[in-house]
Amino acid sequence: MSLLDTNLSAFDPVTDPDQAERYLTDWPRDARGRARAILRPRSVEEVAEIVRLSAAEGIPLVPQGGHTGLVEGAVPSPAGNEVVVSLERLNRIREVDPINFSMTVEAGCILANLQAVAAEHDRLFPLSLGAQGSCQIGGNVATNAGGINVLRYGMTRNLVLGIEAVLPDGQIWHGLRKLHKNNTGYDLKQLFIGSEGTLGIVTAVSLRLFPRPTQVETAFLAVSDPAAAVALYGQARRDLSDLLSAFEIIQHFGLELAQEATPDLRHPLETTSSHYVLMEASASGLVDLSGLMQRFLEGVMEAGHVLDGTVAANTAQARTLWRFREDLVEGQARRGRHLRTDVSVPISAISAFLAKVDAGLTAAEPSAIPVAYGHVGDGNLHYNVLPPPGMAEADKPAFLKRCETVIYGALAEFGGSISAEHGIGRAKLGSYLKGLAPAEKALSEGIKRQFDPQGLMSPGRLFER
Amino acid sequence: MSLLDTNLSAFDPVTDPDQAERYLTDWPRDARGRARAILRPRSVEEVAEIVRLSAAEGIPLVPQGGHTGLVEGAVPSPAGNEVVVSLERLNRIREVDPINFSMTVEAGCILANLQAVAAEHDRLFPLSLGAQGSCQIGGNVATNAGGINVLRYGMTRNLVLGIEAVLPDGQIWHGLRKLHKNNTGYDLKQLFIGSEGTLGIVTAVSLRLFPRPTQVETAFLAVSDPAAAVALYGQARRDLSDLLSAFEIIQHFGLELAQEATPDLRHPLETTSSHYVLMEASASGLVDLSGLMQRFLEGVMEAGHVLDGTVAANTAQARTLWRFREDLVEGQARRGRHLRTDVSVPISAISAFLAKVDAGLTAAEPSAIPVAYGHVGDGNLHYNVLPPPGMAEADKPAFLKRCETVIYGALAEFGGSISAEHGIGRAKLGSYLKGLAPAEKALSEGIKRQFDPQGLMSPGRLFER
Repeated sequence: MSLLDTNLSAFDPVTDPDQAERYLTDWPRDARGRARAILRPRSVEEVAEIVRLSAAEGIPLVPQGGHTGLVEGAVPSPAGNEVVVSLERLNRIREVDPINFSMTVEAGCILANLQAVAAEHDRLFPLSLGAQGSCQIGGNVATNAGGINVLRYGMTRNLVLGIEAVLPDGQIWHGLRKLHKNNTGYDLKQLFIGSEGTLGIVTAVSLRLFPRPTQVETAFLAVSDPAAAVALYGQARRDLSDLLSAFEIIQHFGLELAQEATPDLRHPLETTSSHYVLMEASASGLVDLSGLMQRFLEGVMEAGHVLDGTVAANTAQARTLWRFREDLVEGQARRGRHLRTDVSVPISAISAFLAKVDAGLTAAEPSAIPVAYGHVGDGNLHYNVLPPPGMAEADKPAFLKRCETVIYGALAEFGGSISAEHGIGRAKLGSYLKGLAPAEKALSEGIKRQFDPQGLMSPGRLFER
Repeated sequence: MSLLDTNLSAFDPVTDPDQAERYLTDWPRDARGRARAILRPRSVEEVAEIVRLSAAEGIPLVPQGGHTGLVEGAVPSPAGNEVVVSLERLNRIREVDPINFSMTVEAGCILANLQAVAAEHDRLFPLSLGAQGSCQIGGNVATNAGGINVLRYGMTRNLVLGIEAVLPDGQIWHGLRKLHKNNTGYDLKQLFIGSEGTLGIVTAVSLRLFPRPTQVETAFLAVSDPAAAVALYGQARRDLSDLLSAFEIIQHFGLELAQEATPDLRHPLETTSSHYVLMEASASGLVDLSGLMQRFLEGVMEAGHVLDGTVAANTAQARTLWRFREDLVEGQARRGRHLRTDVSVPISAISAFLAKVDAGLTAAEPSAIPVAYGHVGDGNLHYNVLPPPGMAEADKPAFLKRCETVIYGALAEFGGSISAEHGIGRAKLGSYLKGLAPAEKALSEGIKRQFDPQGLMSPGRLFER
């Protein structure tokens, strides 16, 4: 039995070229790879068997979830030497334990389905991001996904109680605990979370759940500048007492892009401003959230911290406000090739960082069109750049690379990160390695060598090979 | 220059035997060790110098914080071959950044001082535990300390943004980021958190802060049994919308022990019951917490979920209610040698686990006197045992060991842990290794070997050597 026998029906290989296509690209379609085979195991035992064969034959593997990654981590290498292991058939809910505020699910479960299952049990699984309709929880864990609720509930790392994974030697690691507290030895699951498939294949996870919010208040506010947004964030954290669940900043141009994608979106305020805040608070049970939000907004309006604002009167209005944030991504995409970044700085440095990048781009690339938005509470900014209209396609890659250099260059002064939530994959490998301290490089390489001495698990991601 | 030259004034050695005593024991005084030298470096560079000398000479080191550990992790070995490295002189607050909700502090800072510094900046550092007046943050991080606020704010792991540490080869790892989101490669700090000094010496940490609560509501409630306490917890999480900050269960006998330690403590309720819940909700800003707690309690009283209850009318009354929880520990200690455990099970298994242990002890050791209390929201129970009055001192160790076997034996069925928050150290090493899965043992040993090939960092903790 060999992994290269594509008729190997035990692992449900994809052999039809049309069907294969979606396993060779990710959602952004920036890169297309080739694969030696595409396998779709149906159980952890089948995954283990594939890994054992891979180890015996020296064939590199790349595990794959919902194809929604943004850094080419799960796209097979263009060299065509990798076998894709899709986890999509491992999609059982193994257990929901609402009393323990936990559920245990397989890697291939789609995030939106998990949110729905939690809600059926009057619980919340708080991970929430644009790709939730197709991303899979195994990929979320492997990349330590972030999203819009991180300021309240943390990254995926904070939501994982236990992990089942196949190690690179084919052993199954049964680490599926569902304990909220367990302080016995090295917390090995932390290594798998965010390891981007380089240490093994996550096959199932136990997740933390929370009370299901029954009240949501959504506000859209105009502020004078990013500094005002940061000050407002601090006040919202305090006044709303940690019931704040999202706090996004959007530059005015972002609204225009959203309207390009969705022409019937009407500007929600009478005032236009350079920046807006989209914020959400949520609560369950007996809290009077509507009164709380009203008192908060009265206070900040009176104090002049916001210039104008509106609160959604119902769920439909809230959805519309969120469309400005969500549809600007589509509006960007319609403008063609552009630069997407995912940087983070301390919250206290957001304003200075944005000013520095604005000035740097104006000086170095005055024709660049910035689109800046992000999660204030996490210090996580998507400072993106569109090329000027009329630029030749052939010139865009070098232009966008120069813009990226300006943005990344500004990070150092603020102790920032080039990847707040998207990970490294293959797309950011060069920038990542350039900034990596020698001590961290040596420790990371040592861990990789120990787990995967043959270097067969997602090679070329996080490490040069 | 050698580490064994105790006149080495650069590292401020402790040479006076009386003064040395407190570095040779921990607070529970269950064990006393001996040390080759006791050093008190004043900077991370001095710590690095000590570690380099230790590596060159092959001398084992044991880092030490506030001597409040409960598993003999920081007590030097009785063999007397270890050099103690006290971090107490590294006690500077390097930075407080309230806008970023973070602060950066050295390992020797005392937890209560950090809480106070955060409060001065209108922020909360939520780690809170009995030993906070003397434990040091470096020890809290090295042991991933828990405490009473875990259900809302998480273990220490969840509060750490960055770490500075001296690696076993004497290199300083500058991992002191203060980013709330950073998804670049393996999250190495996770390895140090909870590693109990076995991978290096933590010298400074960046910590997450939260809005400072300005309202606290504390209630003491009688419930019929542990199942009622668990049901009440679920309802409190929902009704109070995650503003719940503590939820403790205490068996009736625990109240009597508290009264033995503090005779002027008067039972707060007119009803006595087998079990009580001590719960706390806290909020900042504009939330009407008092009204919220009142609505919650009216609901659960009407529904018959609690038998009786009282809410503290002021801070002094709240303090008194908490003394029942805190002073029972002292009451236990006054009864002499006893068994302390720190186990965890899923929240949904608390009631069944307690029933199983109660029955198991009644069958196997009918004279055992159980003292069970714990953190319901974490599934973390301190199921302790006192020997019967009159038992000879010489018989107690074997008796308590048999009781421990009953308690630990009951854990397996529920996927429980022998150490929810105290760690392993030397005291729990045997039980830990007995339950450790081969895959986890191999991975943990590999990590230890990679970081500390000479095995000089806290040997005999977490590993046999």
